[in-house]
Amino acid sequence: MGAVDGIQGIRRGYKVSLPPALEAPNVQLVCGDATTAMDASDALAIQRSFSLTYGQPLVHLLPGKKSTGEKKLSPLRSVLCDAFAGRVGVVFCGRQSPGGHNIVAGLFDALKAHNPDNVLIGIVGGTDGLFAQKSVEITADVLAVYRNQGGYDLLGRTKDQIKSVQQVDDARAACEAMKLDGIVLIGGCGTSTDAAHLAENFAATECRTKVIAVPATIDGDLKNPFVETDVGFDTVCKVNSQLISNISTDALSAEKYYYFIRLMGRRASHVSLECALQSHPNMVILGEEVATSKMTLFDVTKQICDAIQARAEHEKYHGVILLPEGLIESIPEVYALLQEIHGLQKQDIEVEHIPTRLSPWASALFEFLPPFIKKQFLLDRESDDSVQLSQIETEKLLCQLVETEMTRRTKAGSYKGKKFNGICHFFGYQARGSLPSNFDCTYANALGHIAFHLASAGLNGYMATVTNLKESVDQWRCGGAPITAMMSVKRWQRGPGVSQIGKPAVHSARVDLKGKPYELLSQNASALLMDDLYRNPGPLQFDGPGADLKTITLSVEDRDYIGRIQELRSYLDKVKDIIKPGCPEEILKAALSSMASVTEVLSVMSSPGYRNLTPF
Amino acid sequence: MGAVDGIQGIRRGYKVSLPPALEAPNVQLVCGDATTAMDASDALAIQRSFSLTYGQPLVHLLPGKKSTGEKKLSPLRSVLCDAFAGRVGVVFCGRQSPGGHNIVAGLFDALKAHNPDNVLIGIVGGTDGLFAQKSVEITADVLAVYRNQGGYDLLGRTKDQIKSVQQVDDARAACEAMKLDGIVLIGGCGTSTDAAHLAENFAATECRTKVIAVPATIDGDLKNPFVETDVGFDTVCKVNSQLISNISTDALSAEKYYYFIRLMGRRASHVSLECALQSHPNMVILGEEVATSKMTLFDVTKQICDAIQARAEHEKYHGVILLPEGLIESIPEVYALLQEIHGLQKQDIEVEHIPTRLSPWASALFEFLPPFIKKQFLLDRESDDSVQLSQIETEKLLCQLVETEMTRRTKAGSYKGKKFNGICHFFGYQARGSLPSNFDCTYANALGHIAFHLASAGLNGYMATVTNLKESVDQWRCGGAPITAMMSVKRWQRGPGVSQIGKPAVHSARVDLKGKPYELLSQNASALLMDDLYRNPGPLQFDGPGADLKTITLSVEDRDYIGRIQELRSYLDKVKDIIKPGCPEEILKAALSSMASVTEVLSVMSSPGYRNLTPF
Repeated sequence: MGAVDGIQGIRRGYKVSLPPALEAPNVQLVCGDATTAMDASDALAIQRSFSLTYGQPLVHLLPGKKSTGEKKLSPLRSVLCDAFAGRVGVVFCGRQSPGGHNIVAGLFDALKAHNPDNVLIGIVGGTDGLFAQKSVEITADVLAVYRNQGGYDLLGRTKDQIKSVQQVDDARAACEAMKLDGIVLIGGCGTSTDAAHLAENFAATECRTKVIAVPATIDGDLKNPFVETDVGFDTVCKVNSQLISNISTDALSAEKYYYFIRLMGRRASHVSLECALQSHPNMVILGEEVATSKMTLFDVTKQICDAIQARAEHEKYHGVILLPEGLIESIPEVYALLQEIHGLQKQDIEVEHIPTRLSPWASALFEFLPPFIKKQFLLDRESDDSVQLSQIETEKLLCQLVETEMTRRTKAGSYKGKKFNGICHFFGYQARGSLPSNFDCTYANALGHIAFHLASAGLNGYMATVTNLKESVDQWRCGGAPITAMMSVKRWQRGPGVSQIGKPAVHSARVDLKGKPYELLSQNASALLMDDLYRNPGPLQFDGPGADLKTITLSVEDRDYIGRIQELRSYLDKVKDIIKPGCPEEILKAALSSMASVTEVLSVMSSPGYRNLTPF
Repeated sequence: MGAVDGIQGIRRGYKVSLPPALEAPNVQLVCGDATTAMDASDALAIQRSFSLTYGQPLVHLLPGKKSTGEKKLSPLRSVLCDAFAGRVGVVFCGRQSPGGHNIVAGLFDALKAHNPDNVLIGIVGGTDGLFAQKSVEITADVLAVYRNQGGYDLLGRTKDQIKSVQQVDDARAACEAMKLDGIVLIGGCGTSTDAAHLAENFAATECRTKVIAVPATIDGDLKNPFVETDVGFDTVCKVNSQLISNISTDALSAEKYYYFIRLMGRRASHVSLECALQSHPNMVILGEEVATSKMTLFDVTKQICDAIQARAEHEKYHGVILLPEGLIESIPEVYALLQEIHGLQKQDIEVEHIPTRLSPWASALFEFLPPFIKKQFLLDRESDDSVQLSQIETEKLLCQLVETEMTRRTKAGSYKGKKFNGICHFFGYQARGSLPSNFDCTYANALGHIAFHLASAGLNGYMATVTNLKESVDQWRCGGAPITAMMSVKRWQRGPGVSQIGKPAVHSARVDLKGKPYELLSQNASALLMDDLYRNPGPLQFDGPGADLKTITLSVEDRDYIGRIQELRSYLDKVKDIIKPGCPEEILKAALSSMASVTEVLSVMSSPGYRNLTPF
């Protein structure tokens, strides 16, 4: 007893595959186009905040010996990383996400492969540890224990932010004291934003440390053309889906309970959407749907009650309903109430006086809520000023409201079925500490390798990226993108999801209600609701069939932005090739007219006014 | 979408191994010794209640072609099951337990293999369905969908009991109407007791249906010399252990929360003990320990607070504490309060008046409890009159009491560490609906086969049994034991675990505080508490290394009662062989003197007064 054995031990020995670009002793780093902002209207604001790091080029990693892609990409420069000798630091900045340890392992392997004298410094205790300059040199022996293991306990984590002037100064002082050539920050949207600011600050102060971010968050909301998914999302969705399916099986066996399951995932509903696609519950209510339709708490309750009533008419008195933890904040009236409470908290009003200081309508809603929810609404905010969503028992609130409404309907004679029985669950902590899936192990390891190559090439303010992830590892594209290219500026004042108004940030991507994963769900929503098509994806498997399945989201989204950028460039090159000085005039004319029209269409589409911005 | 695929589909095709005795087309059924009561002092009471079915012999299943074991076992009779032609019914009587569907599958396979005209009747909707004579013929096609799948949704379940005279009469009427030669009841202790009574009633009324029970309960508390473990226990412990381990990893990464995890498992703490052995949490408080030490609610709180304080002195502010759901009832003062409430409920006192009718000391405890627990204590009982343990949030109660006590200690200056932060979990429903483990699939399937052989041999009031389970399948011993041999009579009035005072029943076996699994835990308790030796057994695996691991309980208990009975018989036979008429007188004398002394020792040890009975 005490010794680690069994599957945990076996996983230590799991050999992750490497994308071909990272296998070579000589990895070639090739620069692509200079980047811009995702929304043209934000470009100026972002450029103003990041004058030194804005507009840097995309970079691609290619196997060192081949030189194929090079011509097509018209490289600005090419660096051979094995020249690098130095020290790189790594810090866990976000919440623990399965696979995090493999980022460190990949980083270590690449760093040592290129020069055994290179040193990897682990920052102990997250950002607080960084400010306090607590560190440890990571060795192969120590790392061996953490390979393919869950959690962040190799180094730990704390507050997860580098925001204030003092914090940035402390971080710089630490990097200088530790003589770091590069520092790798592992985290989600907040961490990426911090990394961009840190990179800009380091560039301005001529600190030699290069800042690289790696996307790891179970919420899966750090998502943009360059980042297809985050380390940990795959595992967490699989573990949650198994549990939801088990509950569904239970519901179907006993036929007497409605299970209300809240899922961790913060403001965005990616986890809930993926889990719904995996496990086919009767119902899932995404925060994005509620916000877009501006539903009230009563609307949401009514929607659930109507579903229960419809099922009762078919003699069904059981069911499974998924609720993302961000749902509560997505209900506009609740969001407004939470904002008022937050405003009062900021004025240091004591918690017991807050209810009396609310506006009349906020007060009316507050008084309507059950005591346990009132208490949870009054909790202090997270360190990043967001609501402590994990502590608000939305599932209990809705279960209680549904029970009240079903009792009312029964008394009024409009519902004639059996008594409603609800059981509540919250799945979060039990998934995010899981042993990582094969996919997360492999993805994280590749990102770690890439982070080393980016830092060693002297790139600053970049995110390590792997794209074309839906395909097999040998087709993955490795590279880096400037974090500023993932930033946007939010301008609206009201509505869920607002943060840092007017300041550029990497924002949490919400579920795209026009995207394929959501389309797949909505096409099947009524069948799922009525026909109990429960599916059990089974427990996370490491061996045998099913061990290498990817998330449905990743499979149906069909994302390959980087691949398409490269395809476009080859078209442009081809036009250039054809229209060389000396070509017939009619061909030149045709090209001119075609390109003028293409250019005009694209200009209009890229103009600030064209894109219809919505809160999601 | 909608179609079942992936791991769920793959599991349908999983081929379970059969113990050698069940593989043959000709299975031989051999009778062993007549059985007695486990406790000699109960024998008379049991015999009085079961005059027709008490004292029946053990039976062993052996491969038909070999005849080895036969001589040693001196068979009373031997039956070739393939002569049987008829109809067998099957009903889910207990709560859903992973593997339940495989019992039906094994039953079906054996029944059809012996005669394709045999019919398996599934009772739809559990015991209520039996009373109402709702049934369906089970076909290979339908069954194919449910092989190796979790839940009981093939047939469903309801109230899970056959107790009253009316219920027994209805069950008999149903068996007669359906022309059943045998009926197989799948469930735990309550179901076994019901099966014994039903068998006795059927024998008395000359109903031709033979009653066979099969042990399936996630609680793992149907445990005696003949039953080493129950179908579902293996899976549920593995699923729970994974989740506990994930939480432990999380605790270790964030280093700021104490997780209070309540585990389903009803009155006995077998699930909690096994999960603790699997996952190594900091602390587990077994109901059996609390009841034996007669701890109060304050004692339990203090024990946890002292542990938190000891850890704080080593700068540790995180931890994982397991609590069996039966813990609350094991605290004598709480048990007494619950009994008083139950007494008042039976008098039809309205729920709002119950608190005012409590005895002074019970009232004092009740008033001390937080409102949510008060409400849960006043809930109606389960159909079997037991407390609705799954609805009592013991983890929240203890977390709250610990928080209060830690705050008091901080104010008093005796605790100087950081603020205590608790997070609560209840793991139950999300485990019991799981896809069954390889072990549970195999064990359940074997039991199903055996149930057919017992019924077809005309045995009545038997439990299907497989022993020597810790070894590989080819060494498993298959057979049947009269349920009356597993019964006992409880006589004490006070203390947890009382049921049917004075009536023979198959009682829930509690964790043996002198047994090896508990010894293993207690030897390591202080290291687990202080040193964070968290172990992650990983998610339930179906393939690859670790897929066929068994529970630690089963592995360390080293049970093989049936094997030892057989070994003893071979010694007795050997003595008989040696002392044949004509043997030298000195050898006869030596044998006489030795056997006289052995007989005397065993008589004294078996006398009613010898065994020191305790509530557990």
